[in-house]
Amino acid sequence: MRIHVPELPTGRLTDAWRACVGTGRFDLALRRDYQDSLALVQREIGFRHIRGHGLLSDGVGVHRPYEYGGARRVLHSFTYVDQVVDAYLDLGIRPFVELGFMPSALATGDQTVFWWRGNVTPPRSWPEWADLVRSTVQHLVDRYGLAEVRGWPIEVWNEPNLTQFWQDADSDAYHRLYEVTANTVKEVDASLQVGGPAISPGSEADEWLARFAEFVTDKSVPIDFVSRHAYSSGPAQHVPFGVHQTLAPAATLLDQFAQPRRQLAGTPLAGLPVHITEFNSSYRPDNPVHDTAYHAAYLAPVVAAGGDLVDSFSYWTFSDMFEEVGVPTALFHGGFGLLTHRQIKKPTYHLYAFMARLGDQILARGADHLVTRDADGRVTVLAWALDPHPLRLSIPLDAASAFMSRSSVHEEAGNAWAAWGEMGRPQSPRRQQLDALREAAEPARSHRSLPVVAGRVDLDLTLARHEVTLVEISAVRDETPPWWDEIRIPGHE
Amino acid sequence: MRIHVPELPTGRLTDAWRACVGTGRFDLALRRDYQDSLALVQREIGFRHIRGHGLLSDGVGVHRPYEYGGARRVLHSFTYVDQVVDAYLDLGIRPFVELGFMPSALATGDQTVFWWRGNVTPPRSWPEWADLVRSTVQHLVDRYGLAEVRGWPIEVWNEPNLTQFWQDADSDAYHRLYEVTANTVKEVDASLQVGGPAISPGSEADEWLARFAEFVTDKSVPIDFVSRHAYSSGPAQHVPFGVHQTLAPAATLLDQFAQPRRQLAGTPLAGLPVHITEFNSSYRPDNPVHDTAYHAAYLAPVVAAGGDLVDSFSYWTFSDMFEEVGVPTALFHGGFGLLTHRQIKKPTYHLYAFMARLGDQILARGADHLVTRDADGRVTVLAWALDPHPLRLSIPLDAASAFMSRSSVHEEAGNAWAAWGEMGRPQSPRRQQLDALREAAEPARSHRSLPVVAGRVDLDLTLARHEVTLVEISAVRDETPPWWDEIRIPGHE
Amino acid sequence: MRIHVPELPTGRLTDAWRACVGTGRFDLALRRDYQDSLALVQREIGFRHIRGHGLLSDGVGVHRPYEYGGARRVLHSFTYVDQVVDAYLDLGIRPFVELGFMPSALATGDQTVFWWRGNVTPPRSWPEWADLVRSTVQHLVDRYGLAEVRGWPIEVWNEPNLTQFWQDADSDAYHRLYEVTANTVKEVDASLQVGGPAISPGSEADEWLARFAEFVTDKSVPIDFVSRHAYSSGPAQHVPFGVHQTLAPAATLLDQFAQPRRQLAGTPLAGLPVHITEFNSSYRPDNPVHDTAYHAAYLAPVVAAGGDLVDSFSYWTFSDMFEEVGVPTALFHGGFGLLTHRQIKKPTYHLYAFMARLGDQILARGADHLVTRDADGRVTVLAWALDPHPLRLSIPLDAASAFMSRSSVHEEAGNAWAAWGEMGRPQSPRRQQLDALREAAEPARSHRSLPVVAGRVDLDLTLARHEVTLVEISAVRDETPPWWDEIRIPGHE
Amino acid sequence: MRIHVPELPTGRLTDAWRACVGTGRFDLALRRDYQDSLALVQREIGFRHIRGHGLLSDGVGVHRPYEYGGARRVLHSFTYVDQVVDAYLDLGIRPFVELGFMPSALATGDQTVFWWRGNVTPPRSWPEWADLVRSTVQHLVDRYGLAEVRGWPIEVWNEPNLTQFWQDADSDAYHRLYEVTANTVKEVDASLQVGGPAISPGSEADEWLARFAEFVTDKSVPIDFVSRHAYSSGPAQHVPFGVHQTLAPAATLLDQFAQPRRQLAGTPLAGLPVHITEFNSSYRPDNPVHDTAYHAAYLAPVVAAGGDLVDSFSYWTFSDMFEEVGVPTALFHGGFGLLTHRQIKKPTYHLYAFMARLGDQILARGADHLVTRDADGRVTVLAWALDPHPLRLSIPLDAASAFMSRSSVHEEAGNAWAAWGEMGRPQSPRRQQLDALREAAEPARSHRSLPVVAGRVDLDLTLARHEVTLVEISAVRDETPPWWDEIRIPGHE
Repeated sequence: MRIHVPELPTGRLTDAWRACVGTGRFDLALRRDYQDSLALVQREIGFRHIRGHGLLSDGVGVHRPYEYGGARRVLHSFTYVDQVVDAYLDLGIRPFVELGFMPSALATGDQTVFWWRGNVTPPRSWPEWADLVRSTVQHLVDRYGLAEVRGWPIEVWNEPNLTQFWQDADSDAYHRLYEVTANTVKEVDASLQVGGPAISPGSEADEWLARFAEFVTDKSVPIDFVSRHAYSSGPAQHVPFGVHQTLAPAATLLDQFAQPRRQLAGTPLAGLPVHITEFNSSYRPDNPVHDTAYHAAYLAPVVAAGGDLVDSFSYWTFSDMFEEVGVPTALFHGGFGLLTHRQIKKPTYHLYAFMARLGDQILARGADHLVTRDADGRVTVLAWALDPHPLRLSIPLDAASAFMSRSSVHEEAGNAWAAWGEMGRPQSPRRQQLDALREAAEPARSHRSLPVVAGRVDLDLTLARHEVTLVEISAVRDETPPWWDEIRIPGHE
Repeated sequence: MRIHVPELPTGRLTDAWRACVGTGRFDLALRRDYQDSLALVQREIGFRHIRGHGLLSDGVGVHRPYEYGGARRVLHSFTYVDQVVDAYLDLGIRPFVELGFMPSALATGDQTVFWWRGNVTPPRSWPEWADLVRSTVQHLVDRYGLAEVRGWPIEVWNEPNLTQFWQDADSDAYHRLYEVTANTVKEVDASLQVGGPAISPGSEADEWLARFAEFVTDKSVPIDFVSRHAYSSGPAQHVPFGVHQTLAPAATLLDQFAQPRRQLAGTPLAGLPVHITEFNSSYRPDNPVHDTAYHAAYLAPVVAAGGDLVDSFSYWTFSDMFEEVGVPTALFHGGFGLLTHRQIKKPTYHLYAFMARLGDQILARGADHLVTRDADGRVTVLAWALDPHPLRLSIPLDAASAFMSRSSVHEEAGNAWAAWGEMGRPQSPRRQQLDALREAAEPARSHRSLPVVAGRVDLDLTLARHEVTLVEISAVRDETPPWWDEIRIPGHE
Repeated sequence: MRIHVPELPTGRLTDAWRACVGTGRFDLALRRDYQDSLALVQREIGFRHIRGHGLLSDGVGVHRPYEYGGARRVLHSFTYVDQVVDAYLDLGIRPFVELGFMPSALATGDQTVFWWRGNVTPPRSWPEWADLVRSTVQHLVDRYGLAEVRGWPIEVWNEPNLTQFWQDADSDAYHRLYEVTANTVKEVDASLQVGGPAISPGSEADEWLARFAEFVTDKSVPIDFVSRHAYSSGPAQHVPFGVHQTLAPAATLLDQFAQPRRQLAGTPLAGLPVHITEFNSSYRPDNPVHDTAYHAAYLAPVVAAGGDLVDSFSYWTFSDMFEEVGVPTALFHGGFGLLTHRQIKKPTYHLYAFMARLGDQILARGADHLVTRDADGRVTVLAWALDPHPLRLSIPLDAASAFMSRSSVHEEAGNAWAAWGEMGRPQSPRRQQLDALREAAEPARSHRSLPVVAGRVDLDLTLARHEVTLVEISAVRDETPPWWDEIRIPGHE
Repeated sequence: MRIHVPELPTGRLTDAWRACVGTGRFDLALRRDYQDSLALVQREIGFRHIRGHGLLSDGVGVHRPYEYGGARRVLHSFTYVDQVVDAYLDLGIRPFVELGFMPSALATGDQTVFWWRGNVTPPRSWPEWADLVRSTVQHLVDRYGLAEVRGWPIEVWNEPNLTQFWQDADSDAYHRLYEVTANTVKEVDASLQVGGPAISPGSEADEWLARFAEFVTDKSVPIDFVSRHAYSSGPAQHVPFGVHQTLAPAATLLDQFAQPRRQLAGTPLAGLPVHITEFNSSYRPDNPVHDTAYHAAYLAPVVAAGGDLVDSFSYWTFSDMFEEVGVPTALFHGGFGLLTHRQIKKPTYHLYAFMARLGDQILARGADHLVTRDADGRVTVLAWALDPHPLRLSIPLDAASAFMSRSSVHEEAGNAWAAWGEMGRPQSPRRQQLDALREAAEPARSHRSLPVVAGRVDLDLTLARHEVTLVEISAVRDETPPWWDEIRIPGHE
């Protein structure tokens, strides 16, 4: 059956899919590999915001107590904050600020998360915490201007409903943290956007959100957006330097995206923007699934449709320069990154790069495809497949003939991970191997002339196993001169 | 039948194929597109020398007569010479100096060649010509050092056996030009290398070389190398902004390469280096054959074997930034370039880029292949085909298993010219079209794991019509950990 | 006497001074040195438009007659036009289009101007000229979009009141050219801006403009702006590769700027924008005055005040990559450029770079200074001097103390030309000499802390001979910690 | 009195001064600011090796124990090692390998040094330590080739004579560490260079070295070089985020350089290369003296003369990207760096940049100057002054006239730290302030023509307080044309 794509748009493709992307801890942004990767990502994809943990953790060096004149004082220092934010702005991306974790000298306890020891306990002094928040936000406003910082959402903490991220997952303590923080942000300027609760799926997420919504409503605490996370993996089965997990169907993710708006319908928070401030299949940075062609095909329907449900959904994360469980021991190690260290593109990178080439008018969409058109009339088809199958479309085009180009990633193409396997899984590939991996990471490309009959192009695609493909169809304006005679060119059949 | 590749090398691959490359007239080297193209060529191919016309023509501004104190004087000015040569050296390439054409203020006649009017008449003053040569060569030695300039061959004029390039193709006049010039070069320093006669094929080339050899021998004129050109096309049939020509078999070119050494055998010039200072299929800069996949396959055996016959053979030319018949009117216009304007790679570019990845030990060679190995043990196969056919090799490899990667250009892959045709042959493609052409210009890539049995890998290639392919085979050192279990990764079959 | 700078702005500094800059002929823009220079100029100065000759001359290859099917036809080719305009837009600058000169195959005569032979005779076919104009303008609209091209003024020809630039300086012929051209431009789109007559000063410029204004008014020919040129030099006295000329006082230039508006007052053209599409001291590209410190000081009051009189005044030209009288024979040759070949900054470059650091509120101005403030409260003083003298200002500043930095060029500083003289005027400096010249070309820099008393800073400047200086004064927010004790640092006095 | 500089060289300037430079801990090399700084340093100075701590510390992730099959195993991982060393080689600098500190999972104790917690206790398993060393060195040889790694000195640990760096400063334990390590290195390849003991000055350094020498001699332990450190500061007096210290005269440093060779004279180790693997005035990374003009003048005689005494002396360190006592809280914080974060050049940077412009023939030297000549005949004078005074030289030059250029840093010039003070010591300067600091950091430049009389140039320098100056004197070859007449150029006096 051939799907008949209508001529008039049926909707608009928002840019919620590129509104935000995740990153490893704040001070990793000081690294060159990180910035090289982000530059590539911004050139070929172009995210608007970036969000990660650790802004206030010790490695960034913001909260600096000292003794002077016999008293304890605190200096707030922004040496690295400014280096990172300057770099972000230079790369055309803006912070989605996450306030956390706790500076060790301000913490009530020793509990930490991750290899890099982010402290997850409440502050031992609420005024000192408020000073820290005020000073940080005020500094950003002073340096970058209120008009700019007003566009940076400010989220309070990360996944407080998990005991790993917030001591005892204590919701009362989080409510206090949120209240103090949100009020302090608004003291700096009432137009700044503050929100939360950044909850993880599972772990009584719904109850948590309900209690949080009730708290902010009852106490009239400022809130400009609601945030949560989405993951679709089962429990981790560990092997050295890695895990295996099962995955629920991708639709689970869309269901999680929809949850806050569904739950808050009819409440005072109903109209607020909803940000999915983290999403991925597995929540583990050492699950090989992230590196596979399967992963791109699995996530394609989520990335294609997520914007119908939320204002942003932030892929966790753009780069494998990420150290939650320690320094990666091999180039491919199941990291979250769209890119490995040294900028090898994974299949999921291409899913996003393909999205970046879509038009903003939606002409048609289905379980395995999304057809768009841009202002110049160029039609694009994004299609995906877990299992091989054909896709036949009839596409409207106002031209005498068409030029079609196609880029594909699947098991055999754009799959550097497979090439790396064939190479013997070298932990730290040599330069020549890296070059070969970069070549293997490029999509398969093809191009063709297509006839336009009665204003329509018939497009017959065969989708391979775990394929994500982008087809671009442009009107041809034929400039071939009348004397052109291909038969006279040597080599012509 | 499977070809059994021996384990021990059967010869060495010299770098005569990359010893020199051709360029459009000297002052085109001031252009950014030219330098961008040369930078790309140097990064991926890496030629050693570059040769073109027009160093002494008016556009470079070297010969500058003026009146002062009532007398005519001549200033020699190197403003552009230095800009170009500085750029060459920065790009890691050195001049193969061609002395010509005649500055108009020093010429005896008005006859010019090309759209840019290179004057091809003898000097009206031999001392003034000698001053020009001396001053130019001395300037190069002063600026770049004798040790450096000693490595730059200096060729006297271009194709004096053609009436278009030297008035009346007058051999006596050329002999005088050569004698004055060669002696002047040696006056600057006896260690500088000078040579000629840079003759075109046809037009009594053999007689010309014979007379030249006799002249320099009889008169003991300095000569350090012998040069000639090689082309394989028939006469031009014109269409607007283009020509069609037949091509002789590629072996014709190798025969032309061999000619000087054959002819000079037994003479006093027998031991001199032989440089083919230009070669290509067609000698026309507007023959579409240069842009085709056929062209790469046609030239592959010449590039693979030319080094057996001569010290250098210089592909004419690296870039379409070339204006013999005027400013090109379309992106693809049949220019000589390995690259079009704006750095679209033609199939012949890839032939050279593949050559640059070969090892220097020749293991085997045949009518459609060249097998090499490098110092690290990596084996490469360069293969080519005018008509589709299989190539089966048994390759020695000291490893338990092998990683193979393959890059191919043919009618369907790495063929931007075909994509441009499908686009409607846009004269000046828009940026999005240029991006699509750049993607279309990349070779098809694939990779695979290959078993090694009894120290040998069986390689079964199918060569497509007009294919040039590079296969790289490396030993695998397996670092897969014992706990690796692909079946547990979601998406695994 | 100390000049008391008011606290409230007395006017706005428009950006007429940076609205346009001049360039050598169109195809020089293909060169790398040209683009490197333009990139530097754009980074540190930032012009909005660029204007030069030769768009339609043979070197750009637009007008291409050919024979086909027994008839003469014309192909319009934009190979180089697109390369140049793409590069301009990439560098953040837009064309100020000048339509000229005549393609040789369309010209009625052989008269040419400049070393590069721009044909200055009327077209032999008005319809073929109109086709050329239409095709060119339409191509720009197709490639860059109407919204973009609408912002590019289109000027008809150059200095038609000079016999060198328009055969016989025939005003009737120019009127016809203007009429045909303007109407053709408006046929492409009525919103495009077209204007003229681009007249040179002298040569009955006033009469010419009067006749032109009368012509377009009487015949209702479209006109969107009026343009003329301004120069202040006397007749040329020639030496080899150079000239000497006297200069009228700089005020002459401002008087020429004011002339069109003065002359057209009360006419139907009174309200039109006025563009000075070329200005400089000398109109010769080989007058050493362009290279001197004197030149910057001479032009400073013109650049500081020109915006009061006109909508743009375009410095002729940004780079010495310019060939009206042939290839320059020495690095410093009296070229128009703000930069020499190889990006040595001349003093006049710094005048413009200093302008680019001014604020847009004018606080005060005088015969030797211009004081501005920007949105952040930073005060800048641009001052200049032909003869040494003091300048004393009292400047309002809302702060407890001030940081002042000063950059100066004069005979002893920022004067690479003087250094080049001391080096022996090397025609083509070696790399080490170029490095030394680049260092010599940098302004002298100094900085100081200044007290603020009663909201005012006393600034006492001594201006040297031929100085242009920029002083920047910022409010200090003192972050010195209380424990800072400079006396304990080794080396402190 | 005028110092008469001889015509014939009196010695050779070795490149011991640039043979090595210090760096913050190994993983800081992953940062972009670090690499940007190193790129600048390499472009303008060009060190040969780089040495720092922490290669084996946890942040680099080399030593990775895990459980598998019920047993504890160790994986050696080189993910970050390779990223850093690849970057070093790309920047033209090679590792001076320091083996340390102890991976926490291999350590016998908890004692750590620095904010980043480098473990300084002996290994709990000597075989596991040897495995770690072997694996690391073997990996470097595999990846970079033996010919390359043979040129990288390998030093065992850092300052074991200090209790902060080696538990109890236990020399027996260090001897065991050295023996195991040196033997393991030699097992990988006997041609690799291994050495120590990298001792700090003070803390019984002489006795330590004596015992170490005796140990390696008696036990025939391999040793290819001897290393120690040199510092000239007194005890630290603390203020928040900083210290004050007195400095001994700079000659103290030269005395420390000379010590190992003096002490080992007559022993079997007498002939070994001596490397000063760290030197500076203060050993504290928070002493403002490092940022001052005084510091450059203080160290100038050490850098100028150190090469007479040792094979290398490594300035500690090239960049303020350094975190021994935590993240720096202000741009200028008394760090060791030649450059601050964001590449502001300190005066001591210029001392090294001036050294890089010296010739290699020493013509004369004195308490305040070093005169050299290079192969091209260019004479350079490096001079320095703690207190203002004149320096008068008579310099031989084979030319008719001379061009002199001078670059100076002192209290008023090339002193960004002073400008920063005037700005109010902003902790994290805004971009405009950083630009102003970069301008303030450039040396004062001047140039002049100098007469040559009887083959000599009289050079009269006035040295300012805390000045380091570089004078370059080149022979002039006068190309001024006979018609040059400066008086005719407008503006000429």
